[in-house]
Amino acid sequence: MDQQPITRTTVGIVGAGPAGLMLSHLLALSGIGSIAIDARTRTEIEHTHRAGILERDSVRLLVDTGVSDRVLVEGHEHKGIDLRFGGISHRIDFQSLVGASTWLYPQTDVFIDLADARARDGGDVRFGVTDTHVVDVTGSTPGIRFTDEDGTRHEIRCDYLVGADGSRSICRREVPEALRRQYFREYPFAWFGILAQAPRSAEELVYARSDEGFALISQRTDTVQRMYFQCDATDDVDRWSDEQIWDQLQTRLAGEDGFQLVEGPILEKTVLPFRSFVQEPMRYGNLLLAGDAAHTVPPTGAKGLNLALADVRVLAETLELAILKNDVDALDGYTARALDRVWKAQHFSYWMTTMLHRVDGASDFDVARQLGELRSIVESDAGSTYLAEAYTGWPR
Amino acid sequence: MDQQPITRTTVGIVGAGPAGLMLSHLLALSGIGSIAIDARTRTEIEHTHRAGILERDSVRLLVDTGVSDRVLVEGHEHKGIDLRFGGISHRIDFQSLVGASTWLYPQTDVFIDLADARARDGGDVRFGVTDTHVVDVTGSTPGIRFTDEDGTRHEIRCDYLVGADGSRSICRREVPEALRRQYFREYPFAWFGILAQAPRSAEELVYARSDEGFALISQRTDTVQRMYFQCDATDDVDRWSDEQIWDQLQTRLAGEDGFQLVEGPILEKTVLPFRSFVQEPMRYGNLLLAGDAAHTVPPTGAKGLNLALADVRVLAETLELAILKNDVDALDGYTARALDRVWKAQHFSYWMTTMLHRVDGASDFDVARQLGELRSIVESDAGSTYLAEAYTGWPR
Repeated sequence: MDQQPITRTTVGIVGAGPAGLMLSHLLALSGIGSIAIDARTRTEIEHTHRAGILERDSVRLLVDTGVSDRVLVEGHEHKGIDLRFGGISHRIDFQSLVGASTWLYPQTDVFIDLADARARDGGDVRFGVTDTHVVDVTGSTPGIRFTDEDGTRHEIRCDYLVGADGSRSICRREVPEALRRQYFREYPFAWFGILAQAPRSAEELVYARSDEGFALISQRTDTVQRMYFQCDATDDVDRWSDEQIWDQLQTRLAGEDGFQLVEGPILEKTVLPFRSFVQEPMRYGNLLLAGDAAHTVPPTGAKGLNLALADVRVLAETLELAILKNDVDALDGYTARALDRVWKAQHFSYWMTTMLHRVDGASDFDVARQLGELRSIVESDAGSTYLAEAYTGWPR
Repeated sequence: MDQQPITRTTVGIVGAGPAGLMLSHLLALSGIGSIAIDARTRTEIEHTHRAGILERDSVRLLVDTGVSDRVLVEGHEHKGIDLRFGGISHRIDFQSLVGASTWLYPQTDVFIDLADARARDGGDVRFGVTDTHVVDVTGSTPGIRFTDEDGTRHEIRCDYLVGADGSRSICRREVPEALRRQYFREYPFAWFGILAQAPRSAEELVYARSDEGFALISQRTDTVQRMYFQCDATDDVDRWSDEQIWDQLQTRLAGEDGFQLVEGPILEKTVLPFRSFVQEPMRYGNLLLAGDAAHTVPPTGAKGLNLALADVRVLAETLELAILKNDVDALDGYTARALDRVWKAQHFSYWMTTMLHRVDGASDFDVARQLGELRSIVESDAGSTYLAEAYTGWPR
């Protein structure tokens, strides 16, 4: 073992994205020390653009715990979504159905708020580290070894190690194959996403099902918009010209009401892969997993970030019980408590996906049934409410 | 053309099961004459046992139109169902969720009530006919030719011809292939059904999802019960011994609460095929299709008979407009009005099926997601209500 300074903390956190930073923030509020590290630099994370639809409780978590109220000022409250099919938009009015809203607020801004809050409160966060390893996860003092931005090797020893290191988590590999179970689902399509310089075509999100496939109209600012359309899983960004992209989007949104997207220069193109994944258990010894490290969802239900924050809420409570009340049995319950919501969110994401996407080779029956399901939902207050309460976030 | 007596009526109905007889009854109430024929004898139909869960509006139709109120006396009001999974029963309380009930009342009793009512009211119904053909369905006087029970050939000429002749309908074949569209879905399993001599194991229906597959506990009388379990699509009744049958049923119902089925001699065994089918349009010239002739559903949602009666309600209104008000445009709307409900029911039947059945080769992810969906439904008033309103029957 190489000789390196050992830093002691209570909770070592691998991953300083929204999940890792929110955990560090919540622990600090309870007086529990932590160190969070991340392989990416702060600038890199700030330039990783991701859509951001925040559930009601995600917004509350940011605001009520004192991270920032910028989401309320610069974010946009969305009081519903449109489900569009058969060339008509059908409003799912969250406020009238469940008395809740979602907020459009980019994930990078959530990250910036959290990183600023941690810096403001004296949190210990190390970005841009390399050569990270976790050790002794079943021991009483598990550790993280890494090289900092200046090239210095470090070792952190802690009571609990948290893997919040995203979908390519190194932490989740620490759970031995014989003890873990992994659940996968691939989808035969992906999303082609663009950032376009144009005014809003719609005030809130439009989820459109058409014979040509799914499309999603989202927003970013007054002058820049985000839109997506279902493409092949093997597509890359160069396959589609700007003209073809607008043609696809306009076709999928077209309808009896004459709805038209406002076009503009395309600033960015990306292909988002579609994949469902869960690894359980989420606790192994003194290692606990949170967010994308333990599960990924397809983007249709906008659940990824919200699920990570929900994990962290449960995990902070669990660690507080273990550390402050010496109630180590609480750790035993973490997997079940977190997975309870995870599997509902996995189902919701799958459901929104299959209800709205075109599947190559689907029978005529399945296409007509899909429209029958969409009608069942929008024609029923109960059906619309069932969707709205999942979308805006189940109560804990 | 052979020489045979021609009988003139307003509506000729092929099929004198519940759909055909209910239509004949409703038309008679409006003073519209009809003749219904069926290839089966009355005794044969009375001995074709089918489960019978009647939606609220199906019961109202029988009672309020004066067919019979026997369903209220001899039927059993069911105020909910149990969804059973993870070894626990979860009550879907129809009364508290949607203020409605279903009624357990065998389909043969619905038939007997209707046949008795038609006989009481002087309806013209001919059972046990053979060699039936329909002719001139696009002409102004379409016809039915058949041989009666005594061997005499007959020809009926009418203004409108209704095909209510079940899943092997000869009438639907009259719609030319170029003008019709057929939608199919096969399922990789079937239901093994038994009639057992035993007291009730549960007061109302129990829909059970288990790792071994689906099972349904239903009732018939105080001493005879009906139960089903998911089997292979290729199974036949001789493959399962009585002991194996009880073993399957007990295993699929077993749980933390110690629930046990009361066993008894098995009186009857059947294998129910699983199939979804729709043919459109439901009107072609002066031919109109109703019930199984136009669509079949898998039994999971108990929608088959109810959907046939819903068709007939719409069809009676349509024919009354066309015949009594000379509003022949009403006929143009029949397909769309009927299919509106049909596709919602097709979705509901598919949904109940996929939510509760085991699919060979399903991934671990899909199995866990299925449980996530069941929890989403039972933990949410909105989800439970969405299911309850579909099960008890959407308002028209």
